[in-house]
Amino acid sequence: MTDITVSPVAHVRGGRAEAKDDHWGEEQARIVLADTLPAEALMGLDAFSHAEILFHFHLVPDEKIETGARHPRGNPDWPRIGIFAQRGKNRPNRLGVTVCRIVSVSGREMIVEGLDAIDGTPVIDIKPVMREFLPRGEVRQADWASALMAQYW
Amino acid sequence: MTDITVSPVAHVRGGRAEAKDDHWGEEQARIVLADTLPAEALMGLDAFSHAEILFHFHLVPDEKIETGARHPRGNPDWPRIGIFAQRGKNRPNRLGVTVCRIVSVSGREMIVEGLDAIDGTPVIDIKPVMREFLPRGEVRQADWASALMAQYW
Repeated sequence: MTDITVSPVAHVRGGRAEAKDDHWGEEQARIVLADTLPAEALMGLDAFSHAEILFHFHLVPDEKIETGARHPRGNPDWPRIGIFAQRGKNRPNRLGVTVCRIVSVSGREMIVEGLDAIDGTPVIDIKPVMREFLPRGEVRQADWASALMAQYW
Repeated sequence: MTDITVSPVAHVRGGRAEAKDDHWGEEQARIVLADTLPAEALMGLDAFSHAEILFHFHLVPDEKIETGARHPRGNPDWPRIGIFAQRGKNRPNRLGVTVCRIVSVSGREMIVEGLDAIDGTPVIDIKPVMREFLPRGEVRQADWASALMAQYW
């Protein structure tokens, strides 16, 4: 099993200072490119309405990581579910992926809305949302997921 | 700038042996959990129609990585675009994210359809697709992206 090393391509600046479970929808944050990359890396992103941000839940300690199954958010009203059937942060590799709305792109920065990542979060990739990469066919999901997400944005 | 180390949580088995640009839609592949993780990690994923697979384009050599702007697929008919406004594989950190359809989940394996990753690809996360994590608001994209994606699936 070969480890993979990645480097931050940007950081989240602004937005929330602490992770909370809900009401992320109207948060705005800046994403500022790492010094190692040219501003050109963001060129043309403003032709897209949404971007997918890959980031590292850098504050999750090793001992919190779930590798098997658990109740989502620790709530016993919901069934025990495997960590790869959940999107919570206490997961192997601590990776997050969120689609957010692009508010503006300027020089080495972009402003996004609805990114559920806190101030200082390392960003490891930025991708444009293309319609063709959205789910093909009808989307079906577990009931607990709909309940959990009710207040998220 | 602190590097981040991640470990494969699974590998792609089957599907294509080589990367090609187009017609990925009907490819089926197995995703097999790493020995370090229990089968429980996948429990409950079968209640979802789609999963998001994060993977590593492990065969891309350093010298191919674009950090600035380029013509998508090297096609001069399309404008020069920053690498973070594209989804191509020759990108910093070599990370891919694709939503694919879940065909089945059984024990330590799942079968998926429409994963644009080749046999042997290291998978670094698996997440269920939840409607609430799809783009909120209308999706707008660059014209070159619609042209590029026309034959992709």
